[in-house]
Amino acid sequence: MNKKNKKVNAAILIIGNEILSGRTQDKNIAFLSNWLNQNCGISVKEVRIIPDIKKIIIDNVKNLSKKFNYVFTTGGIGPTHDDITAESVSKAFMVKYEFHKQAFKILENYYGKSKFNDGRKKMAKMPKGSKLILNPSSAAPGFIIKNVLCLPGVPSILNSMIENCKQYLVKGSKVYSQTLNLFTVESNISKELTIIQKKYKKKVDIGSYPFFRIGKIGVSIVTRSIYRVKLQKIRKELIKLAKSKNIKILKI
Amino acid sequence: MNKKNKKVNAAILIIGNEILSGRTQDKNIAFLSNWLNQNCGISVKEVRIIPDIKKIIIDNVKNLSKKFNYVFTTGGIGPTHDDITAESVSKAFMVKYEFHKQAFKILENYYGKSKFNDGRKKMAKMPKGSKLILNPSSAAPGFIIKNVLCLPGVPSILNSMIENCKQYLVKGSKVYSQTLNLFTVESNISKELTIIQKKYKKKVDIGSYPFFRIGKIGVSIVTRSIYRVKLQKIRKELIKLAKSKNIKILKI
Repeated sequence: MNKKNKKVNAAILIIGNEILSGRTQDKNIAFLSNWLNQNCGISVKEVRIIPDIKKIIIDNVKNLSKKFNYVFTTGGIGPTHDDITAESVSKAFMVKYEFHKQAFKILENYYGKSKFNDGRKKMAKMPKGSKLILNPSSAAPGFIIKNVLCLPGVPSILNSMIENCKQYLVKGSKVYSQTLNLFTVESNISKELTIIQKKYKKKVDIGSYPFFRIGKIGVSIVTRSIYRVKLQKIRKELIKLAKSKNIKILKI
Repeated sequence: MNKKNKKVNAAILIIGNEILSGRTQDKNIAFLSNWLNQNCGISVKEVRIIPDIKKIIIDNVKNLSKKFNYVFTTGGIGPTHDDITAESVSKAFMVKYEFHKQAFKILENYYGKSKFNDGRKKMAKMPKGSKLILNPSSAAPGFIIKNVLCLPGVPSILNSMIENCKQYLVKGSKVYSQTLNLFTVESNISKELTIIQKKYKKKVDIGSYPFFRIGKIGVSIVTRSIYRVKLQKIRKELIKLAKSKNIKILKI
């Protein structure tokens, strides 16, 4: 594979009982996945949502950091007892869990010496050797150690920090995608789609997703590839297929 | 553990490139997790989102079905080439992937013999020995084999089928939860929360989540337990804590 088509992948590890229990609707997965692809050409290949339990966090960090180029964790880096991400990541990599000098200073300045209590100090504790991911909205930094980047769970804070991750990431090839919305049902075109998918084998992923819109049912055909030209070619084939079956195309 | 406090758990396996890529915002995790706890006392302990790749589906089905009482998969049971859940689950359990007679009849009746094409027939193929999860909205049934329940990815269809899963599930104890919203910051109460959490050890989970509401910042303290009485006790302690620190409680 040449430099132009470099595949870089990542996993997302969502840490938090509130997402698992269904109390909170996750918003970070779609944001991170879109941002990583658009800005860094990094494809998210697996997501896991796990509870706030040390052993489980440690096992998943070990496992995912071996399997993927990067792991992004969200949640569990605040000041309370259920914030155990930094400690668990330290254990996963068998390094000390200690105060990060720069993080300590940032937080001390932010809160002021007199209000810099133990809970707030906890947010400066990280795996030894971590580098900071600065936080422009609420000061408490995230961190990167080896290939694991630890971010907070609150979406607005995570979003404000994401640009500061860029400096640590090796870029890959962006995956382009195109969508064609057809007013038909999946089973009417499934045979032909199989043939087109086989033709483009591993170069293009073709996904087919039913939709309900403007009171009508239809199918979104989503093609994804690092080769833009292939997407144009497939688009033509799909439009030809639609015409041959008298299927209307939804114009957006 | 007596019968009254029976713990039953589950994992959710979301199968679909469209969720991983961030194109589609998942809605099934929160729905399934809430429904399982409310209606069956089943706690979701892990969620994974994986791509439409056979080997990966097989590995995850094997792994999760050993670790948890139930596995709920969503996605990949439609008529197109990227719908490979049923075939993969068959391989995971090393059983034949074949037409399910009852499913075949349901679909043949629904579409009518003349319109029952190969794509539609595919939806009647399942792991040998599966039992059906009927689908009141679009006919194509889901299925259960061993402890794995396979459901579609379209949320409205999944929601319409969920009651038909009940007959196959052993019920556990419902986890109750209570939320107290305090107008303070986490680090102001983190020390006291740690003490309360230690006191109730494994009987109650206490989570602390920052919120931004009515232009003010605050913290939601979420307590979760199968012991309702313990939640009442903790609530009183939290209200006492708030009063001692002059923290306002948000009344909803």
